[in-house]
Amino acid sequence: MNQKMIARFIGKILLVGGVFMLPAYILSLCYREKEAGQAFLLSITVTMLIGGALVTANKGAKRGFHAKEGLVCVGLSWIVLGLFGALPFFFSGAIPNYVDALFEIISGFTTTGASILPEVESLPKSILYWRSFSHWLGGMGVLVFLLAVSSGDERSKGFTMHLLRAESPGPKVGKLVPRMKQTAEILYILYIALTVLDIFFLLIGGMPLFDAVCTAFGTAGTGGFGIKNDSIAGYSPYLQNVCTVFMLLFGVNFSCYYLLLLRQVKSVFKDEELRMYIAVILGSIALITWNLWGFYETFGETFRHAAFQVATIVTTTGFATTDFDLWPSFSKGILVCLMLLGACAGSTGGGFKCGRALLVLKGLRRSVRQIVHPGKVEVVRMNGRPVEEKILENTNAYLAAYTLIIIGSFFVVCLDGFSMTTSITAVFACFNNIGPGLELVGPTCNYSGFGILSKLILILDMLAGRLEIFPILILFSRTTWGKR
Amino acid sequence: MNQKMIARFIGKILLVGGVFMLPAYILSLCYREKEAGQAFLLSITVTMLIGGALVTANKGAKRGFHAKEGLVCVGLSWIVLGLFGALPFFFSGAIPNYVDALFEIISGFTTTGASILPEVESLPKSILYWRSFSHWLGGMGVLVFLLAVSSGDERSKGFTMHLLRAESPGPKVGKLVPRMKQTAEILYILYIALTVLDIFFLLIGGMPLFDAVCTAFGTAGTGGFGIKNDSIAGYSPYLQNVCTVFMLLFGVNFSCYYLLLLRQVKSVFKDEELRMYIAVILGSIALITWNLWGFYETFGETFRHAAFQVATIVTTTGFATTDFDLWPSFSKGILVCLMLLGACAGSTGGGFKCGRALLVLKGLRRSVRQIVHPGKVEVVRMNGRPVEEKILENTNAYLAAYTLIIIGSFFVVCLDGFSMTTSITAVFACFNNIGPGLELVGPTCNYSGFGILSKLILILDMLAGRLEIFPILILFSRTTWGKR
Repeated sequence: MNQKMIARFIGKILLVGGVFMLPAYILSLCYREKEAGQAFLLSITVTMLIGGALVTANKGAKRGFHAKEGLVCVGLSWIVLGLFGALPFFFSGAIPNYVDALFEIISGFTTTGASILPEVESLPKSILYWRSFSHWLGGMGVLVFLLAVSSGDERSKGFTMHLLRAESPGPKVGKLVPRMKQTAEILYILYIALTVLDIFFLLIGGMPLFDAVCTAFGTAGTGGFGIKNDSIAGYSPYLQNVCTVFMLLFGVNFSCYYLLLLRQVKSVFKDEELRMYIAVILGSIALITWNLWGFYETFGETFRHAAFQVATIVTTTGFATTDFDLWPSFSKGILVCLMLLGACAGSTGGGFKCGRALLVLKGLRRSVRQIVHPGKVEVVRMNGRPVEEKILENTNAYLAAYTLIIIGSFFVVCLDGFSMTTSITAVFACFNNIGPGLELVGPTCNYSGFGILSKLILILDMLAGRLEIFPILILFSRTTWGKR
Repeated sequence: MNQKMIARFIGKILLVGGVFMLPAYILSLCYREKEAGQAFLLSITVTMLIGGALVTANKGAKRGFHAKEGLVCVGLSWIVLGLFGALPFFFSGAIPNYVDALFEIISGFTTTGASILPEVESLPKSILYWRSFSHWLGGMGVLVFLLAVSSGDERSKGFTMHLLRAESPGPKVGKLVPRMKQTAEILYILYIALTVLDIFFLLIGGMPLFDAVCTAFGTAGTGGFGIKNDSIAGYSPYLQNVCTVFMLLFGVNFSCYYLLLLRQVKSVFKDEELRMYIAVILGSIALITWNLWGFYETFGETFRHAAFQVATIVTTTGFATTDFDLWPSFSKGILVCLMLLGACAGSTGGGFKCGRALLVLKGLRRSVRQIVHPGKVEVVRMNGRPVEEKILENTNAYLAAYTLIIIGSFFVVCLDGFSMTTSITAVFACFNNIGPGLELVGPTCNYSGFGILSKLILILDMLAGRLEIFPILILFSRTTWGKR
């Protein structure tokens, strides 16, 4: 294990993290938020100093990154970013308990959107901005950003591969162009363009600039932190519909947009994952609209709420326009299933991912066929191309890890004594980076009631969910830290 | 597809089914239960006539069974046995709705123990006997029984293999001796011996003979139908403890007992699955006893209830001595996790099985190690012996099917509008062949409130759980019924 190299890398991440806090600091000056301003200044100083020290102290580190170092870097970076990113909340007194502050910022970076704050409107604007900006940053990935802008030793081939693999969700790495740095650049350009478009449409609907930017950050990262106590419910139907559309757009695999730019429209609409994603969304909206008949006054209102809530859950955003915990069981059941499914691979959304679910289904269909015709060899295909056996194996291993983490976390969270539904949906909502669950963690509630142990477990769940389990699992494996 | 051969086989199964109803008929004569007696006579006549007709009509069927036919036979046999086994309930008026009667008998055969009856003490004794006997029969498997006693064409090698594989739970087929028929005989002899021992200990504790036989049937099959409205709660602590011990014994892989008879004590206690099973039981009892501190009057009472409930859930029996739905969340959480785990492979218990969970865990550990050391080839070992890759793949496919069926069933059951906890634990309890869940399907409640669609789905879940999914899945696959 090249520990010096890892320390140096973590140092760089901290320097970048410090830079990212600057806009919030400037905002605190504009809005004359004295306490928040001091908190940001102190946080930036601490972060940059420690980062700088780590980089300088390990300047002579040997190059050469193996897969192991790459993966360890990913997991550690996110944890360290969380530890320092929580400082502004803590120093400003916005969240006086450090574990709570950590929960909040990890929830931000992982685009979960689960909050421990009972109300947010009294918070300084710069703090709200930092909270929402963490979503935007975490959505596409901090390391991918570093990759897009850096020209340093992080660009060694094996390492960038691991980086992109760890931060871009899905069963396969979405390499758009042969060079990794370029792929990262394209991803960020698309991401910025879509975010600007979202802000534009929100402004047209009359939303104030600050609200529009923060809401767009939450939408783009499929995060879900709102800057109002009632999330999106207070905005006009037009603004809610804009959010619905953009949440769904950010749940699509970004390579589809790249293909659209290359005018390969046909291959986009033949993409099996995209088709499944669209089918699931339309089906869920239709079923919920039917199930909610008479719950709201008009058909239009019912449809709008159904579409918004389906979009917010399937893309794992977690905004809310209505308290869906009051909906009938069938609608809630659909939402719980959507919580587990998640959006497309290669999007900013979390969850198990449609593409992975498709692979599991196809693998299962093959298993059934092979029992019936034991001699026959069959290849699983996706978009017409055969899928490597290795990827199928990994997908099944992923499902196994996914299930075990849910069961294990549920087990610990139960210790706090809340209802079964609260405990299990809290785990679902954090692990799949959604935010709200049902009952005590429903859309009108928050996570402040949990004990420290549960909060720490949920923090790990959020990280594991965002980084697709293995980079976090590896930090706890003896093999990683062993001499061999 | 050799349809005539399958029809002939189903005919034989019906003949055997008719014979199995005879003891209940005789009992109805002893207890002078006129209506029940007529119902049994009518049911036996109908079952035997149709069975006989199927056998005679397809006498000239070509021999030669493929894997496909074997698997189809297994699934169909259980469905047909359920359809005819429900007749006594229906004809006697004990359960006037046929779907309910079918639910009850499938719950019996699959050793689930989920009931739609709000109370059972008013039922004729012969009906109670048939209800409990279905557990005993289903526990070791009707087809395994047929295999043990028959000398017909079912003994062709490939077929018997499928039979045993389908009815004996676990990731591998437990072949005790090279010949299948002999294996089936040994299994049934052990099963009968343990059941008789159970009855003996219950009689010593002063339980009436009828109660002892029925309770032993429910214990042996890890079924859980009681003959009292309060299940086992009304019996003395000694009798409850006897049940606890025997439930746990019936949850052990039967090949362990065979090895004990061969005096291979060491290899039994080195068995990794058995060790895990014991560790899980002891750990759960300890945690629940700790969590329940002060819930009951004495430590002894707390320990007794904790041990009983852990035993009843982990072995998927479903008896109850107390309403665990009133327990604190952590204890309920442990029980929910145990519901998913289940007992040992090769036992009469249901669930995912400890052995399979071990394989998933070991496979996952290897995946993590292979990410860290990509070049290294590692073999998964169980009890010191390498596990075939095929078995690991099948285990993962099993987990995938298991998860999908739970999600799909939950989705449909939600339509009835009960709470999330009721809906999800109903699916858990039926699919894992346990019986009671939480809230509206808790240990003091029953399944009568569900709609017909939910009941049919839960019936399929029970069958899929008992037969380990694939024999039921295959009945719904186009490949099975296609020409190719």
